[in-house]
Amino acid sequence: MTDKLTYGMVGGGPGAFIGGVHRAAIRLNDEADLVSWADVIPEGARAKAGAEMGLAPDRVYGSFEEMALAEGARADKIDWVDIVTPNRFHYPAAKLFLEQGINVVCEKPLCFTAEEGRDLKRVAAGHGCLFCVTYTYTGHVMAREARQLIRNGAIGDIRMVMGEYPQDWLLDTLETITEGNRPWRADPALSGRGAAVADLGTHIENWVGYVTGLKIDKLACHLDVFGQGGVLDNNVEALIKFKGGATGMYWTSQVAIGFDNALKIRVFGEKGTIEFVQEENNYLKVSLRGKPPQIYSRGAGYLTPEAAKYARVPTGHPEGLTEAFANIYTDFAAAVRDKKAGKAVNEDDYGYPTIQQGIDGVEFFNKCVDSHEAGAAWVALDEE
Amino acid sequence: MTDKLTYGMVGGGPGAFIGGVHRAAIRLNDEADLVSWADVIPEGARAKAGAEMGLAPDRVYGSFEEMALAEGARADKIDWVDIVTPNRFHYPAAKLFLEQGINVVCEKPLCFTAEEGRDLKRVAAGHGCLFCVTYTYTGHVMAREARQLIRNGAIGDIRMVMGEYPQDWLLDTLETITEGNRPWRADPALSGRGAAVADLGTHIENWVGYVTGLKIDKLACHLDVFGQGGVLDNNVEALIKFKGGATGMYWTSQVAIGFDNALKIRVFGEKGTIEFVQEENNYLKVSLRGKPPQIYSRGAGYLTPEAAKYARVPTGHPEGLTEAFANIYTDFAAAVRDKKAGKAVNEDDYGYPTIQQGIDGVEFFNKCVDSHEAGAAWVALDEE
Amino acid sequence: MTDKLTYGMVGGGPGAFIGGVHRAAIRLNDEADLVSWADVIPEGARAKAGAEMGLAPDRVYGSFEEMALAEGARADKIDWVDIVTPNRFHYPAAKLFLEQGINVVCEKPLCFTAEEGRDLKRVAAGHGCLFCVTYTYTGHVMAREARQLIRNGAIGDIRMVMGEYPQDWLLDTLETITEGNRPWRADPALSGRGAAVADLGTHIENWVGYVTGLKIDKLACHLDVFGQGGVLDNNVEALIKFKGGATGMYWTSQVAIGFDNALKIRVFGEKGTIEFVQEENNYLKVSLRGKPPQIYSRGAGYLTPEAAKYARVPTGHPEGLTEAFANIYTDFAAAVRDKKAGKAVNEDDYGYPTIQQGIDGVEFFNKCVDSHEAGAAWVALDEE
Amino acid sequence: MTDKLTYGMVGGGPGAFIGGVHRAAIRLNDEADLVSWADVIPEGARAKAGAEMGLAPDRVYGSFEEMALAEGARADKIDWVDIVTPNRFHYPAAKLFLEQGINVVCEKPLCFTAEEGRDLKRVAAGHGCLFCVTYTYTGHVMAREARQLIRNGAIGDIRMVMGEYPQDWLLDTLETITEGNRPWRADPALSGRGAAVADLGTHIENWVGYVTGLKIDKLACHLDVFGQGGVLDNNVEALIKFKGGATGMYWTSQVAIGFDNALKIRVFGEKGTIEFVQEENNYLKVSLRGKPPQIYSRGAGYLTPEAAKYARVPTGHPEGLTEAFANIYTDFAAAVRDKKAGKAVNEDDYGYPTIQQGIDGVEFFNKCVDSHEAGAAWVALDEE
Repeated sequence: MTDKLTYGMVGGGPGAFIGGVHRAAIRLNDEADLVSWADVIPEGARAKAGAEMGLAPDRVYGSFEEMALAEGARADKIDWVDIVTPNRFHYPAAKLFLEQGINVVCEKPLCFTAEEGRDLKRVAAGHGCLFCVTYTYTGHVMAREARQLIRNGAIGDIRMVMGEYPQDWLLDTLETITEGNRPWRADPALSGRGAAVADLGTHIENWVGYVTGLKIDKLACHLDVFGQGGVLDNNVEALIKFKGGATGMYWTSQVAIGFDNALKIRVFGEKGTIEFVQEENNYLKVSLRGKPPQIYSRGAGYLTPEAAKYARVPTGHPEGLTEAFANIYTDFAAAVRDKKAGKAVNEDDYGYPTIQQGIDGVEFFNKCVDSHEAGAAWVALDEE
Repeated sequence: MTDKLTYGMVGGGPGAFIGGVHRAAIRLNDEADLVSWADVIPEGARAKAGAEMGLAPDRVYGSFEEMALAEGARADKIDWVDIVTPNRFHYPAAKLFLEQGINVVCEKPLCFTAEEGRDLKRVAAGHGCLFCVTYTYTGHVMAREARQLIRNGAIGDIRMVMGEYPQDWLLDTLETITEGNRPWRADPALSGRGAAVADLGTHIENWVGYVTGLKIDKLACHLDVFGQGGVLDNNVEALIKFKGGATGMYWTSQVAIGFDNALKIRVFGEKGTIEFVQEENNYLKVSLRGKPPQIYSRGAGYLTPEAAKYARVPTGHPEGLTEAFANIYTDFAAAVRDKKAGKAVNEDDYGYPTIQQGIDGVEFFNKCVDSHEAGAAWVALDEE
Repeated sequence: MTDKLTYGMVGGGPGAFIGGVHRAAIRLNDEADLVSWADVIPEGARAKAGAEMGLAPDRVYGSFEEMALAEGARADKIDWVDIVTPNRFHYPAAKLFLEQGINVVCEKPLCFTAEEGRDLKRVAAGHGCLFCVTYTYTGHVMAREARQLIRNGAIGDIRMVMGEYPQDWLLDTLETITEGNRPWRADPALSGRGAAVADLGTHIENWVGYVTGLKIDKLACHLDVFGQGGVLDNNVEALIKFKGGATGMYWTSQVAIGFDNALKIRVFGEKGTIEFVQEENNYLKVSLRGKPPQIYSRGAGYLTPEAAKYARVPTGHPEGLTEAFANIYTDFAAAVRDKKAGKAVNEDDYGYPTIQQGIDGVEFFNKCVDSHEAGAAWVALDEE
Repeated sequence: MTDKLTYGMVGGGPGAFIGGVHRAAIRLNDEADLVSWADVIPEGARAKAGAEMGLAPDRVYGSFEEMALAEGARADKIDWVDIVTPNRFHYPAAKLFLEQGINVVCEKPLCFTAEEGRDLKRVAAGHGCLFCVTYTYTGHVMAREARQLIRNGAIGDIRMVMGEYPQDWLLDTLETITEGNRPWRADPALSGRGAAVADLGTHIENWVGYVTGLKIDKLACHLDVFGQGGVLDNNVEALIKFKGGATGMYWTSQVAIGFDNALKIRVFGEKGTIEFVQEENNYLKVSLRGKPPQIYSRGAGYLTPEAAKYARVPTGHPEGLTEAFANIYTDFAAAVRDKKAGKAVNEDDYGYPTIQQGIDGVEFFNKCVDSHEAGAAWVALDEE
């Protein structure tokens, strides 16, 4: 593509899981090139990694502060920065890039507190910057289909939402954690007040909010810390009441043996039910009242145009995690191009998760922890 | 079988769903014959129905009171009575039969209050009577396999339990309910304080208790009453804390479109996970830590002997609801025969759900309603 | 039921798998009582078994010949006989009972040769007897639904049929077979020319014929005899051409590790596809062109009335093997009652598999063996 | 990556399905850049497409002949060419590039006749060129796992193989075909003697050969041409006999309503069974004799190292079509690098499908057509 965009990345160098997925997704789209990168690793390793990623040496930085200021000063500054550090650095890094007028894509959870999030939103608005929070699972074609079906009234008013997200990968990690060897996700100083509830729980909260438009009114949440090495939650159980009267239950776990990454969300309406399972992301189960359940297939001709446009390969040819990420980047790049072209940009129109969704997630997990600390009592979410 | 047992039935004549299933299950076992029956329907219809069921006219009764006294006075009194009436009549009917020294099999929920249940337990003990509460889904071979695997330590100490039981059959009923046309399950006077929570919720509670041995310590429960015709709950969402530290979530619904009778229970232990789905009752998913999930098949050679003995037909030849009921009757008939033979009978040794499980269910649903009425606050279960 | 029918049984006493299933299915229906029985086991064991089954001693016989003549001479002769012996005895036993004017229910495969089958058909017609061949899997509600949907034109003209029926139970048996210890199914003298092809292959052939109405024109079939102990086929692979132009493939095996009893049939038409899996017999997958596949559920309101009438319990409450057998007996008993009432009976109207289907099965497996013996060459089926 | 390879492409410009997938897969790997391209589309459109793909104008060609000669003459010639044209051009294009010493990656089926294929093999050997045929589905991690498990003896000697590959996309196409509007896949002059049998059937043949190492001895094949617009086969049914005694059945269809791209292969051995389903490519079902079936998950710790190394993201995060392609390119690029580094390269050691597999596919589909033309008679495959 001749007019490719450019982007930088903070954290997530070679070998990192999620940084690698971001870069692969962007390569898949072929709309933008990585041109700068910052990480706090030693200089030698950093230079080597920068070279491996094909970066010019002068755009490989030793800190996000250095990068933000240097990139902000360039005429050919990056079109956006991807922040894929441990949670602790999301807020200061995002803020600094925004202050240089650089659009931000940030991993979730957005930051530690909702107030930080609202601050970022103000700063972004003040500098006219776009802000995307990469809640991956809304990027799936069938998540878009679910959203559009609900918008079209296919299942009527929503009564209940059941969300779950069990994993079991933490089991081995738990046993090897020592004080001196604590992965950042298990370290409150780097990860925040919540672990599973923030890392996984907000995926449920986000997916439901994105797809249904429902807002949580209040919740009651119990957190478990199983295993010797744990200081943060690894099992989360919550009752939810939405504004407008719908209710729900959310469960996420990192110690659910036999489950890999099993995000599953069921939305029950007066006229029908929609079920999405991340591990089977090419399908959507749609049950209408009085009729046999149907299995929608990504790429099929009966999909709504709003979802169908995201399908890359024909039906029956599986897409997966990378495509979900890439779809979010497709949306974000479209907004970036429109902004560059001087068009008025309403971020809600593009499909990617915006900073408000990031704030909602931070609010959600903090209230979950608040509830737990109060004996799993009911806690109301703040009005925005 | 030459020494067949005999039994009577209260309620559930021809055309009734659950009475018919009880009789069919007993016929499947071929261990007992129906010889008496009471119902409050008009005499002509009653006589016709009695004849259809092959009963002697003098053992067809117009009320459970009449039947209890008459049968209690016979030398060839029935070996047990099946009580399959609306919930309202379980307690008085069971009590009267017990007082005549007649063993009781009673549908669930056992009665309206735990105190009634404890009273029945005392009366049963006082008259040396056996008492079975037909929580069907513990009768499945793979429920027995799950229980035995857990007893054998296959999944280690239990951390979480996720139970759900969605149905959607009530939707049509809800719309046709009028004050003068209210089915007994939707009528508090006949059904009790809870509908879905008592009818379905206690199935989850019972299955979990039966299979895992866990006791609930406290719970927080929200009830929904969706639809115009409803006065009782038809959607139930609860957080559970078990004695010993395990936690869980239970959900049941009668308005979950696309779900027929989808009882599904997952028990997560330190060493593995067991998953049972009633609609796929011939299988059990068993996942051990670090190994691929396995699909156990009813009838296969690797089952525990404690479960295998209940399988009736070879693996791959589906068993279903009727066999689950029949297995409970196999257990109960064994206890009846032992009692008749003068052996000491410990009801817990036979496998059928005992009156204590009936009491536990009543306690459970009442506490759920208590919690809901207190704003879904946490409520402790009574010590026995 | 006051006017219950009576039946006798040849073979299949206590402990036998299939005889027990027949008796259980008939008890489930509660329309007929077992009153006589013949088996060639020693007299003492026979008398004991007869008593266990509640039979009068004078109606327990030492051979089918004795039983046929004695029952044929009684005023209260049995309404039908169930023949559940090894295949070798089907033909002579059925013929003798028919000659006494006794209706016959016979296990499959019907006999050794199509000529024997046609002889039985002539004898049955000559004596005005009804004849049912228990191809169980056509008894499932969802088999009836499949048939009716096809009759209603739901999937249009049929293009292809894919049938498979893998099992793995024979593996252990194969290794324990010795000349002196050969189960009857593995003994050509008792079982006939074909093993898997006759026992399982004809289930595919029958289900397809029953549900679709298609007639096989010709076939090419390869048989395998895996394992040291085998002299008969245990793996069958066939190409099928139907009259009218549809084609298909049939596979059955007794050595397919990991498969229990996995009969699965897919019928592809110009307008849609129907898929039935015996192990999930409460469901039917129906895919219409250009629309998402649908999962029909037994008992749901959208079923055709022709199928719905066979459902015994509400949707989501699994039925299984016993109910499939029982449905066939429901059909057969209806025909027996009509015949007793002097009505004209066209057996094809009742739903049970008739003797013609038995003959078709025998023709099918013999032609499969013929084809195999000719190097898996194409072989035409005989015109009737 | 600083030492990226370069490649060119023949056919498959912007908008083409399969060309786009190849390019996306290569971008995912980030090991090679597209630098040249040829297509026969009009010059203006070609120049525009070249620019869109970021190509230098002098490396955008109007024919493969022009491109092969020009690239062959360059010092910085491409490391390989991707041939993604209609089948008709595979042979001449591949030959010409090989003759310039350029490695070839070619879509399947390789060419029209096995003789052409053997010619290409000779030419490749003569010019020391590498040759990969992109049979995608062997690129899945779980295909590699299946292969390694079989090599490790996990399922013992193979007895049967059941392969199927139904699709339904052709139905709409069939109805819109006219003489003047015939897609190349439905045109014998461009596609060759076989359609479904070559396009889909060889995927089964290839996957089985790749994973099991079995060689086909002979086959009997029936082809259907359903629909008015068809002149080539769209439904294929074949019996297979492998060298060494194993047998199998292959079915593929383009008119199987309700099936998207449902390649499914089951390999039955003396000790176990392996089942792979392309649409669920992140899993592999492994059943060992006498034990419950197991569901292996891509990315899990118990995978063989030979397969595990291909997993890109953690277990439970789906990979799909693009990753399968990319894995093949990972293998091929490794061979290209080794060759460039002067190492001796045995193509069979790298994992990608080699030209011999391309030849085998062409031999297979031609013999299928031969068999069909002889009345679905048994036909032996040529010795190499």
